[in-house]
Amino acid sequence: MGSLKKKEKIPAQSVISRTPFPKSKKIYVKGKIHDIDVAMREIETEDVARGSKNFSLTLYDTSGPFTDPDINIDVHKGIPKIRGNWIMGRGDVEELPGFTSNFAKKRLLNTNGITFKHINKPRKAKTNQNVTQMHYAKKGIVTPEMEYIAIRENQKIDELKDEFKDLAAFHPGEDFGANIPTSHITPEFVRDEVAKGRAIIPSNINHPESEPMIIGRNFLVKINANIGNSAVTSSIEEEVEKAVWACRWGADTIMDLSTGDNIHETREWIIRNSPVPIGTVPIYQALEKADGKPEELTWELYRDTLVEQAEQGVDYFTIHAGVLLRYIPLTANRLTGIVSRGGSIMAKWCLSHHKESFLYTNFEEICEIMKAYDVAFSLGDGLRPGSLADANDKAQFAELETLGELTDIAWKHDVQVMIEGPGHVPMHMIKENMEKQLEICKEAPFYTLGPLTTDIAPGYDHITSAIGAAMIGWFGTAMLCYVTPKEHLGLPNKKDVKDGVVTYKIAAHAADLAKGHPSAQLRDNILSKARFEFRWNDQFNLSLDPDTARGFHDETLPADGAKVAHFCSMCGPKFCSMKITQDIREYAQKHEITEVEALKKGLDEKSEEFSGSGGRIYVPTE
Amino acid sequence: MGSLKKKEKIPAQSVISRTPFPKSKKIYVKGKIHDIDVAMREIETEDVARGSKNFSLTLYDTSGPFTDPDINIDVHKGIPKIRGNWIMGRGDVEELPGFTSNFAKKRLLNTNGITFKHINKPRKAKTNQNVTQMHYAKKGIVTPEMEYIAIRENQKIDELKDEFKDLAAFHPGEDFGANIPTSHITPEFVRDEVAKGRAIIPSNINHPESEPMIIGRNFLVKINANIGNSAVTSSIEEEVEKAVWACRWGADTIMDLSTGDNIHETREWIIRNSPVPIGTVPIYQALEKADGKPEELTWELYRDTLVEQAEQGVDYFTIHAGVLLRYIPLTANRLTGIVSRGGSIMAKWCLSHHKESFLYTNFEEICEIMKAYDVAFSLGDGLRPGSLADANDKAQFAELETLGELTDIAWKHDVQVMIEGPGHVPMHMIKENMEKQLEICKEAPFYTLGPLTTDIAPGYDHITSAIGAAMIGWFGTAMLCYVTPKEHLGLPNKKDVKDGVVTYKIAAHAADLAKGHPSAQLRDNILSKARFEFRWNDQFNLSLDPDTARGFHDETLPADGAKVAHFCSMCGPKFCSMKITQDIREYAQKHEITEVEALKKGLDEKSEEFSGSGGRIYVPTE
Repeated sequence: MGSLKKKEKIPAQSVISRTPFPKSKKIYVKGKIHDIDVAMREIETEDVARGSKNFSLTLYDTSGPFTDPDINIDVHKGIPKIRGNWIMGRGDVEELPGFTSNFAKKRLLNTNGITFKHINKPRKAKTNQNVTQMHYAKKGIVTPEMEYIAIRENQKIDELKDEFKDLAAFHPGEDFGANIPTSHITPEFVRDEVAKGRAIIPSNINHPESEPMIIGRNFLVKINANIGNSAVTSSIEEEVEKAVWACRWGADTIMDLSTGDNIHETREWIIRNSPVPIGTVPIYQALEKADGKPEELTWELYRDTLVEQAEQGVDYFTIHAGVLLRYIPLTANRLTGIVSRGGSIMAKWCLSHHKESFLYTNFEEICEIMKAYDVAFSLGDGLRPGSLADANDKAQFAELETLGELTDIAWKHDVQVMIEGPGHVPMHMIKENMEKQLEICKEAPFYTLGPLTTDIAPGYDHITSAIGAAMIGWFGTAMLCYVTPKEHLGLPNKKDVKDGVVTYKIAAHAADLAKGHPSAQLRDNILSKARFEFRWNDQFNLSLDPDTARGFHDETLPADGAKVAHFCSMCGPKFCSMKITQDIREYAQKHEITEVEALKKGLDEKSEEFSGSGGRIYVPTE
Repeated sequence: MGSLKKKEKIPAQSVISRTPFPKSKKIYVKGKIHDIDVAMREIETEDVARGSKNFSLTLYDTSGPFTDPDINIDVHKGIPKIRGNWIMGRGDVEELPGFTSNFAKKRLLNTNGITFKHINKPRKAKTNQNVTQMHYAKKGIVTPEMEYIAIRENQKIDELKDEFKDLAAFHPGEDFGANIPTSHITPEFVRDEVAKGRAIIPSNINHPESEPMIIGRNFLVKINANIGNSAVTSSIEEEVEKAVWACRWGADTIMDLSTGDNIHETREWIIRNSPVPIGTVPIYQALEKADGKPEELTWELYRDTLVEQAEQGVDYFTIHAGVLLRYIPLTANRLTGIVSRGGSIMAKWCLSHHKESFLYTNFEEICEIMKAYDVAFSLGDGLRPGSLADANDKAQFAELETLGELTDIAWKHDVQVMIEGPGHVPMHMIKENMEKQLEICKEAPFYTLGPLTTDIAPGYDHITSAIGAAMIGWFGTAMLCYVTPKEHLGLPNKKDVKDGVVTYKIAAHAADLAKGHPSAQLRDNILSKARFEFRWNDQFNLSLDPDTARGFHDETLPADGAKVAHFCSMCGPKFCSMKITQDIREYAQKHEITEVEALKKGLDEKSEEFSGSGGRIYVPTE
């Protein structure tokens, strides 16, 4: 396989995307409890009908400092550490002289061209301290992270609602949550949700670069983007740019799933430049260390890997501790066996040793590590279905029971937990997944991959899965793990990452609308108004992907004049329904009466005729 | 606007796509009642594990003769007229000496470079005859069209089920239909559904080239692809290739929505080369004839247009007869007014004349025309919402009431009817649309555009709408009108058409699965098995779009050897979960016991331990 190996490369500054969004600027909202500056994006519109003032819409923004031209970024040093002082200010953390992990020490001795040069000194909870957000929450402490999240989730919605009164109306959705309107998200509400385990704030004390965010079903639905190289393809440079690129388009967290060489260094580069929490699946790296042989894995090797990654700053670990020895036979008659990498590695280990999984037997010790750095659990679904045929089967739900049991243990340690879900599930079987998860895992946040609603469209699995993702998000899933068009076929490149992220922003936003998030529909309404008023630039700028919207429009009508034209290439100038409707409205205005009056005036007489004949104006001839 | 006009061009033979699908061949299944040959596509797989014989999967195929290399096609003459003899054989149809429509006569006098040279003589029902499939159905006649459909919908599923016994298991879905398993689709069942108005067979006697298909919720969910040029863009050549291309990827019907010049000629070229039914919105052409001024439209002009198009062979007409004068004020306070072109044209006409819509007042006469050619109604939703803010509002549902009333009238004439639906609807408001439609329109088939589940993603509206389409298809919508990535931005080009069609095949198939169509999941299972067994070529060939699947795979591993490799670029050779699971299975085989036994054997002892400790193997330390 040597011939398949690729060359390594560290990021050039110029490769990293830094262009601000069109007509958008970064704003910072001050905290009231803590000295914090909450980053948001403001889009200016040209809604001149509202008077001389142009109106702006504020959006939740995951792009980090990269879209703020006032911030100087050196990708070789990493982005600003906004949480640095908050973490040290709590007095429960100490800086270690060096890395604890043997593997990390070894890698640092062999510095070479790909080593990140400005590594932070690792931090760890002082002896007997617990530094998790859940621990603080349970003690009644509102951390800067919690206030940041409350402000961030609100997106200035109350101010905006006043400004856009006429557009604030929305369709109240179906609340699958705790019946608390999301506009009432206060710092105290955030604290309470975290204390109850219904939401998590992934925030490793060794990742101070991360902007606080929350995963829970009473908040905006979040999305995760998987990146990472393999033995066969991609470089550190590509992966760092993919991470920045994914955040630009809306990824709320990034999972680095690298399995190739230089996993340690790749991760360091990514974390130091990531404004969003980073998740990993530590068993992948542990397996590398065991020469790719699952049977040679040991708890000691795995433990060292957890510490190595915790001290680098990974915010959540996927741990497949629910793949128990006794569940493996349940997969034997499946169409597609075990398709989770972590799940299959652990299954093979269990079988080779005829022993219970070391992840399960050492779960308490794992919790001890997690709480010393505030790494959150993402309890992996190692037995998730890999095809519709295997959906919602015994193996899947048996593992879920164990994940529920492990949730209790983690919570006992005040370690934050979310639960991973499938996978491949036909539409009519999706809801059962959500209902079972809520019950068995006591409302710990659900984090699902898709699910894909059909297996027959490789090359389009971002779409087959967005259908399932939107539905399960509506039902209450807190975070949706994206699927790219390359799923089942290859590793996603930069284009695939963007396609996956934008598609999942659609699914998450559709879910927010259906759940009734009050801020969600405002953006739809403002964009729709721009569309109806032929404000093409506003329509583009307000959209999830202004570049693509503008590009598609310009394919047929590239001239600048077309951006203010009251028609488009779809119907041409004469056939535009929106133009005709506006003519109708203008007609009314000319006659100095409101539309409703205008129409009623001319119709009252007719209306009487209608009602006289029972609402029909002709009599069937038969 | 003259500068925006484009050049006209008729199709070159070489432009039309004719490549068969990989490892696929056209097969023809004989009828038992009638002398018919039902076209299907057969995919050969390399499932050698089944023994020496390779297995084939039979699929519903919309691509027509274009994918059969044994059929000679001259695009200037049109494709074979498979229904020609059936239509004349019934004895109720006569051939007219020439076209009835004044406009058609005029256009034929001015033949020029773009006129189709091999126009059929128009056919019409003999005096006092009714030639609709509904009319035959009500009289108890099983037509060749009905038997064709029964065979086609079954896709040889009963034979296949025997062959693929191990894969035939599927998740029975939720049946929103009439509780009749779709594998029991017999010619008599088809007849009965058509007689009851629950399904339609669009089949103009002047479109004998069309392969019979059915639209109804107890059948496979169908999709429609809109094509058509505008004054600003595209040519006849492009539109004919778009039609063939759309059918290739799975379009069950095509709507020609041309609004530019040469509407008449464009349509003729498309119909003569279309193996699927063609729909139009006749008001578009009528408006062209009225110089683009809605107020100058007349019933006579419109009537002539209906006859013109019926004699060309259009299979269904979208007619916005539900836009009543008294409903127009209901749209005045909408965010996006009236966004249906047909709806806004009629609204403007009504207001200008202060008269009720001539479509509504002349509805009985329209029925007379429809039944003389068997054109089906697609009763248009002229007041559909153009944004989430306007979803499910009074205007929309008022019009639906009128569509229900018109359905009764059409049925009185034995004219086939389907009902068009929205549009832009958030997820939690989709089901209400289906429920209201079924009730008000007495189970006439529903035909929806999307619906789009959010407004904020122009450039990705194939995806925002596929989410809604899959859901409403599951709930019972019979046909989904595709949306392309260009929606709201421009006219779709060939790439957009394919993206829209494939995306909607996904939505329709996901709906078939959730409804519990027994043939639907077989394809998923066979593809998933191929995926699990690393039969890459089979995975590609069985997929909705083999070209894209193969292309994505080959981006990173183009070598032929990689097509049989037991890994891919995602994880590389060492990390593959599917490989590991297979290792587990091989391990079991080596020890000459079945997997389940193998696992049980080693686990029995352990299992006892587990149960002894209440299913947990450690005791919490706290």
